[in-house]
Amino acid sequence: MSVMDLNSDLGESLGAWSMGDDAAMLDIVSSANVACGFHAGDPAGILATLKAAQARGVAVGAHVAYPDLVGFGRRNMDVASPDLVADVIYQIGALQGLARAAGTRIRYVKPHGALYNTIAQDERQARDVIAAIRAVDASLALVALAGSPLVGWAQAAGLRVIAEAFADRAYTPQGQLVSRREKGAVLHDSALVAERMLRLVRDGVVEAVDGSLARVEAQSICVHGDSPGAVEMARAVRMALESDGVVVRPFA
Amino acid sequence: MSVMDLNSDLGESLGAWSMGDDAAMLDIVSSANVACGFHAGDPAGILATLKAAQARGVAVGAHVAYPDLVGFGRRNMDVASPDLVADVIYQIGALQGLARAAGTRIRYVKPHGALYNTIAQDERQARDVIAAIRAVDASLALVALAGSPLVGWAQAAGLRVIAEAFADRAYTPQGQLVSRREKGAVLHDSALVAERMLRLVRDGVVEAVDGSLARVEAQSICVHGDSPGAVEMARAVRMALESDGVVVRPFA
Amino acid sequence: MSVMDLNSDLGESLGAWSMGDDAAMLDIVSSANVACGFHAGDPAGILATLKAAQARGVAVGAHVAYPDLVGFGRRNMDVASPDLVADVIYQIGALQGLARAAGTRIRYVKPHGALYNTIAQDERQARDVIAAIRAVDASLALVALAGSPLVGWAQAAGLRVIAEAFADRAYTPQGQLVSRREKGAVLHDSALVAERMLRLVRDGVVEAVDGSLARVEAQSICVHGDSPGAVEMARAVRMALESDGVVVRPFA
Amino acid sequence: MSVMDLNSDLGESLGAWSMGDDAAMLDIVSSANVACGFHAGDPAGILATLKAAQARGVAVGAHVAYPDLVGFGRRNMDVASPDLVADVIYQIGALQGLARAAGTRIRYVKPHGALYNTIAQDERQARDVIAAIRAVDASLALVALAGSPLVGWAQAAGLRVIAEAFADRAYTPQGQLVSRREKGAVLHDSALVAERMLRLVRDGVVEAVDGSLARVEAQSICVHGDSPGAVEMARAVRMALESDGVVVRPFA
Repeated sequence: MSVMDLNSDLGESLGAWSMGDDAAMLDIVSSANVACGFHAGDPAGILATLKAAQARGVAVGAHVAYPDLVGFGRRNMDVASPDLVADVIYQIGALQGLARAAGTRIRYVKPHGALYNTIAQDERQARDVIAAIRAVDASLALVALAGSPLVGWAQAAGLRVIAEAFADRAYTPQGQLVSRREKGAVLHDSALVAERMLRLVRDGVVEAVDGSLARVEAQSICVHGDSPGAVEMARAVRMALESDGVVVRPFA
Repeated sequence: MSVMDLNSDLGESLGAWSMGDDAAMLDIVSSANVACGFHAGDPAGILATLKAAQARGVAVGAHVAYPDLVGFGRRNMDVASPDLVADVIYQIGALQGLARAAGTRIRYVKPHGALYNTIAQDERQARDVIAAIRAVDASLALVALAGSPLVGWAQAAGLRVIAEAFADRAYTPQGQLVSRREKGAVLHDSALVAERMLRLVRDGVVEAVDGSLARVEAQSICVHGDSPGAVEMARAVRMALESDGVVVRPFA
Repeated sequence: MSVMDLNSDLGESLGAWSMGDDAAMLDIVSSANVACGFHAGDPAGILATLKAAQARGVAVGAHVAYPDLVGFGRRNMDVASPDLVADVIYQIGALQGLARAAGTRIRYVKPHGALYNTIAQDERQARDVIAAIRAVDASLALVALAGSPLVGWAQAAGLRVIAEAFADRAYTPQGQLVSRREKGAVLHDSALVAERMLRLVRDGVVEAVDGSLARVEAQSICVHGDSPGAVEMARAVRMALESDGVVVRPFA
Repeated sequence: MSVMDLNSDLGESLGAWSMGDDAAMLDIVSSANVACGFHAGDPAGILATLKAAQARGVAVGAHVAYPDLVGFGRRNMDVASPDLVADVIYQIGALQGLARAAGTRIRYVKPHGALYNTIAQDERQARDVIAAIRAVDASLALVALAGSPLVGWAQAAGLRVIAEAFADRAYTPQGQLVSRREKGAVLHDSALVAERMLRLVRDGVVEAVDGSLARVEAQSICVHGDSPGAVEMARAVRMALESDGVVVRPFA
């Protein structure tokens, strides 16, 4: 039996501002990366998302980020190690507290945005995030970009690592993401995306931009929910997997 | 053997801005109310304070507040219940995470500033704070103003309540704090304050503004550390208690 | 020839979070109350709104607020006078700078949310806002709730005051807003609302909740744009006025 | 007659947190770089600093920064051009409003911390800051690092540029600052610093780390006030200049 996890970013509303369709996505994904208040999310909204996830049996992770609401955590910031370590611990702890109140618990950590991209390659910041996770709860898994150096660094430090693929992204022959700055980096055809992800689950490969098959080892697939089209694509991925007998369930 | 707890507000620096003399106060108090980032405190500074408290055997509590850095949590805010409950949970959780990383754990919650004063009397907000504590960890104690309605509300809800007296404040004959707006509300004579607190521990009374003896039931005494004079007064209180055989130790 | 101003709250997006349909509303209103960053609005978004307003000949005002993003400026805050005065000056100045960059200029100030409601009645905070406006530019008009004490306080201080009515709100026989806590306080029928506003312009009266005619002296009508239905209602008001020969144009 | 401007960073307190000794520094410097709320400074504190500067005839500039209170604007941030331009305009405008209320006006812009260092070399961000200044008021001067590419870029764009030297920093033979990461980058001897600055004013040179004379063209000297020792050094610089007949006065 094949199994796969689907994850998405949720809880990203802020006070009067809403973002995404959390209710719809919680019917599609098996893991919810929940904002922690640094790039998005206010405590009451986060708590509501955690309760909704708990009610539907969706696993929850802490979607930790740089402290940057206006930039939505997408801007690179040169945060010193003592600050980065403590910022990540603070966010995980806050989510753990809210998760307890929601009757669930945090099972993993997935860095967001610029922090996610930075630690995939930058060893100093990567080690800070790893140290933070180990300091709070070494049994938390880390969701990391498949094929990135981070995977090895975190495993060597004793963390359980969940490598993830991105459903709507093009890949290089080496199994790396094509940069968003290049044409064709983002895919928009739901049927094609669903088919690609099924192949990923079945054979561990995706068709790269040059037509070759790239090996991508992933235990989770990231889907988006920030537009009606994105929700539709996420649903298509889940249906394609389930139609083929793949069980969608949390990795943790 | 008489015992008493001394508590103070610590961890209130913010990035490049420092406040108070945490090192000095950690040699005086038995319990540290540690800022949670809403009225003061950044994660790295909070973590450093928690580590220092752990190293000296000082118990730590979450000093939760309204979200108001510029106002230092001293401004009344009409926060709706879903927000207040979640804000308090978030802050407790964040501190719990940082405390774990510091090798200690949060033992109590003490609301700060305007939130402290409001919930002493305002039942709606009091019940929100009580609900938040119970949702995260019902074994956490609540530090509350001695003689306030909050004491009873929290006890009735099943929380352990630690009533506290304020070393440097004048009391009414009914055992209430004299409002800061009135003359003589704040005491400045360290020797007098120390003597008053010794009497409080020994006899459960303080001399009120009219010369009568007011009954004040307190399991903790709050001292301040935000000026050299305040640190000196706190030290005088501790020395007076210990000279008379009172053991200063955490209530929790 | 009858003239009337229509105003609405714009520029309330924040980074990745959008709010309202500014483009649609700029085709309907004659005055835009632009967020200043304290309750909503980031500088780039504010600047874009100001440029769009300038391009369509819509007058712009500073929509000043309490410093409270998560609460969207809707929570009462007990801000001391030195802070409130300086907060309002800061926001007006920031908007004036952005307006200059957009080729336009700020013509009025309209407080937002809890600050708006508070200063309609609370003389201390009202005088702080008035003092702030006078300190920056005494020629700026103040948009205030029709029939509120604020109108007189501001006029006595030498400010030009624009009293405003709310298109979608019920009125008491005394010309006051029916509290939102009461049933029927908010109107949802666009045609009815449009007809009421036409009568307001023509006769200076609205039909109160008891069927009597309440006198409401208003030089501007506030319409909303935070939902498709709200935009539709705003458009209906404008069309009703123009169909009857009323010229919709900025008061300033 | 020789003249020189002395500038320092002021208005960097935040609510309950104080920083530096603004009163002492306003007796020493001729120009005050006043925080704008993004890295430091709350509106009431900024206004108080502007009033104090006005009372003593000290010229005021806007000390614009990245939006980062916890990092005190010292962390590099990859802010996109539309945001950076608008952020700078917003801050200048806010300061202009407060300056008007204080009876003075903003005469120049000096970027702070990481933004200062970045735009000294990074053309994209430099052009954003230049565009922002021109959009608000092209007559505002820009204070820039002497010898940096920024000086030329800003002059070519039509801005008046004030090149500045740093009193307490070591220089390379090429007239560049020695990196803070290298030993001896920061000078601590007040008498030596004062003598070096006098030579800078008299001869346009400073003794570089290798003993050679480096040419540094500066119209302003930056001194610090964030510690008693710093204030003492600043005073020594002023006294050395005045004893030798140099007039310390604002460049603008």
